[in-house]
Amino acid sequence: MKKITILDIAKELNITFSTVARALNDHPAISKSTKEAVKQTAEKLGYRKNKIASSLRSGKSNIIGVLIPSLDVSFFSSVVHGIESVMNQNGYSILLYQSQESYKKEDKGIETLLNSRVDGIIASTAINRVNKETFQDIVTRNIPLAFFDRVLEGIPAPAVTIDDYKGGYMATEHLIKAGYKKIVHITETRNLSIFKERLRGYLDALKAYHIPIDEQLILKGNLSLDFGKACVKELTQRNIPFDALFTLEDFTAMGVIQQLKEQQLKIPEEIGVIGFANEAFGSLVTPTLSTIDQQTNRMGEEVAQLFLRMLKEGNFYQHAPKQIKLEPLLIVRESSKGPYIPNIV
Amino acid sequence: MKKITILDIAKELNITFSTVARALNDHPAISKSTKEAVKQTAEKLGYRKNKIASSLRSGKSNIIGVLIPSLDVSFFSSVVHGIESVMNQNGYSILLYQSQESYKKEDKGIETLLNSRVDGIIASTAINRVNKETFQDIVTRNIPLAFFDRVLEGIPAPAVTIDDYKGGYMATEHLIKAGYKKIVHITETRNLSIFKERLRGYLDALKAYHIPIDEQLILKGNLSLDFGKACVKELTQRNIPFDALFTLEDFTAMGVIQQLKEQQLKIPEEIGVIGFANEAFGSLVTPTLSTIDQQTNRMGEEVAQLFLRMLKEGNFYQHAPKQIKLEPLLIVRESSKGPYIPNIV
Repeated sequence: MKKITILDIAKELNITFSTVARALNDHPAISKSTKEAVKQTAEKLGYRKNKIASSLRSGKSNIIGVLIPSLDVSFFSSVVHGIESVMNQNGYSILLYQSQESYKKEDKGIETLLNSRVDGIIASTAINRVNKETFQDIVTRNIPLAFFDRVLEGIPAPAVTIDDYKGGYMATEHLIKAGYKKIVHITETRNLSIFKERLRGYLDALKAYHIPIDEQLILKGNLSLDFGKACVKELTQRNIPFDALFTLEDFTAMGVIQQLKEQQLKIPEEIGVIGFANEAFGSLVTPTLSTIDQQTNRMGEEVAQLFLRMLKEGNFYQHAPKQIKLEPLLIVRESSKGPYIPNIV
Repeated sequence: MKKITILDIAKELNITFSTVARALNDHPAISKSTKEAVKQTAEKLGYRKNKIASSLRSGKSNIIGVLIPSLDVSFFSSVVHGIESVMNQNGYSILLYQSQESYKKEDKGIETLLNSRVDGIIASTAINRVNKETFQDIVTRNIPLAFFDRVLEGIPAPAVTIDDYKGGYMATEHLIKAGYKKIVHITETRNLSIFKERLRGYLDALKAYHIPIDEQLILKGNLSLDFGKACVKELTQRNIPFDALFTLEDFTAMGVIQQLKEQQLKIPEEIGVIGFANEAFGSLVTPTLSTIDQQTNRMGEEVAQLFLRMLKEGNFYQHAPKQIKLEPLLIVRESSKGPYIPNIV
C-alpha cells in the first residue's frame, strides 16, 4: 500500500510541493480557495499529516511516559489510574513502561520513552536501582521528571510519597494496642528508603510502648509470597516465640497467612498479621488482611498535578523541587483483631 | 540548560557543520582522525544524537505498542509478560496503553502509539468496541497489527485466541461430573464473541449430558464483583433452585463466593463455583477458586512470534492472516469439589 505524500496532492492539483505544504500549515500567503482545494484533495487521497515531523517542530507530543516497576502490583496500577485521570483531563495521554524491578530494564525504558518523544517522565524506581546516571541525564537534558513513592535521592525532581515511617509506626502500634506482644517485622535486604522508613517506624513504636527490641524478630530478605512463607517456617523451626507479624508489603503478608494456616495456627487469635500497601486481594482473602493504605489514587493525582505545574512554570530544575508527603491510613480487617483473651469470670 | 548540537561541535573544532554530521554518521569521505576528533568533542560537550530524527530516516523505532483493556486484570498483565519476553529477546521494547474498556480511549491510544512511532500494534479490544474504523485505518496505512484474546472480526490481522467454546464446555462438564445438577451461567450483555462462545460451550455441555436448559439459570449483566453478588441475591430472592454457578470470568465468581458466604451457604458442599481466566487472586481466596486457565504467558509469546514473523515477511496484509487457537486448561480447586453426598451405610 503506497503512502500518500504531499507530492501526490501537488501532482493531482498541478501546483507546487511548497504550495501544498504551506496550505496544509495554514500559511497566510496561500489563498483560501487553494487551501480548500488542498484540503479536499488531501481527504480524497487519504493523506495524513506526518504528525511526528510536526511535533518535532513544535516540540510537544502531549504524551507523558510513566515508568513503573510492575503491572502485577495493584499499588502501581492504582497510582496510574490517578495519574491518567488528571492527565486525560488536561489533554495528555500516557504511555506505560514496566521495569520489572530491574534498573537495566528501567534504563531501557527511559530510552524508549524519550525516543517516543514523550514530553516528560513520571517514575517510581526499580528496587535494585543504585546508579543515578540515566535519571541525572533526564535532568541534564532539561526534560521534566517527577517521582512517586520510590524516589531516587540526589535527583532534584518533584516527588509525591507517603510517610512510610508513620505507616510503619501505625501498623506496629495497632498490633501492640490489639494486645500482641512479640511482634515480628519482615523487611528487605535491598536498599530502598521506603522499607528502611517502615522499619524505623516499627522500632520507634516498640520503643514508645516500652517493648524490648529483639533482633531475632527482624527478618530480612527479598519481598515475595514465598519469602513470607519461609519466614514463618524459620521462626517455627528455630522455636522463636512470636504472636504477630508486620510485613513490609501485602504479598509477603499473604505468604505469612498461607503458612500460618498450613501450620494450623489461628489468625488472629494466636497470631496477628498486618501488611502494607492495601493490595486488591487483601479484602478478598480469608481472613481479610489488615494493612496500611497509601492513598494510591490521590498519590497519582498529586504527582500528575505537580508535573503539570512543572510543565507550566518551565525552567524545570531552577527551583527547589516540590515534595508532597501523604498520610498513610490504617485499614483494620480480620487478620489483626487481637489475640484470644480468656474470659475469667 | 542549553542543548548541545552539531553546530557546537563544529565551532569547537573549527570545521563545517556537514563535516561533523558526516563524521557522526561514519561517512566514508571523512578521515579517521577527523571522526575521532568529532567523537571526542561530542563526548566532551555532552552531545546526543537526535535519535528521533535518525529513526525517522530509518523508519524503524524498534518499539511495539501494546493496547490492553485494563492493568487491573491479571489476565492482561500476564499476556503482556509473554509478549515482552519475546520482544525483548528480539531487540524490541514495548509501550503499553490501557483503554479502560472504552473504545473512545482505545482510539486515542492508537493515535498516541502511532504518534510515538511504534513499529506496530498488538491489541486486545475494549469491551464496548463496535465500530472498526481506527483498526481498519491501521491496516490501510500498512502498519503491522496483531490481536490477542479479543479480536475485531473483519480486520485481516493475525490473532491468538483460546478456544472459548471449549473452555465453557469444560467448565460446565466439570460441574456436571462433580455432581451438580442445576447449573447457573452468568454472562455478559455486551457483544463480545469470547463471552458468546463460553455461553455456547455451557449450552452444549448441558445438552450432551441431557440436562434441560433453564433460561432462568442464565443471567446477563456487566461483569464485575458486584454483579456476581447481585446474581446470587436475585436467584435467592426469586426462589430459583440452583446448586452451582459458572461465571464468565473470575471477578464475577469472587462476588458470587462473597455473597454465598454472606448467606452462609457452604462452598462446595451446597453450591459449586467455577470462574474463567485464572486471575491471580483465585489461589489466594478461601475457598480457592476453580477456573479455566487461558495459557496467558504462552498467548503473549505466540502473538509476539506471529507479529515478528509478520514484520519479517513484510507485505503485511497480502496473505490470509494467521490464526492460532490455544487450548484452555481446567484448574480444579476447592470451590467445585462436588456437593455433599450422604453416606448411606
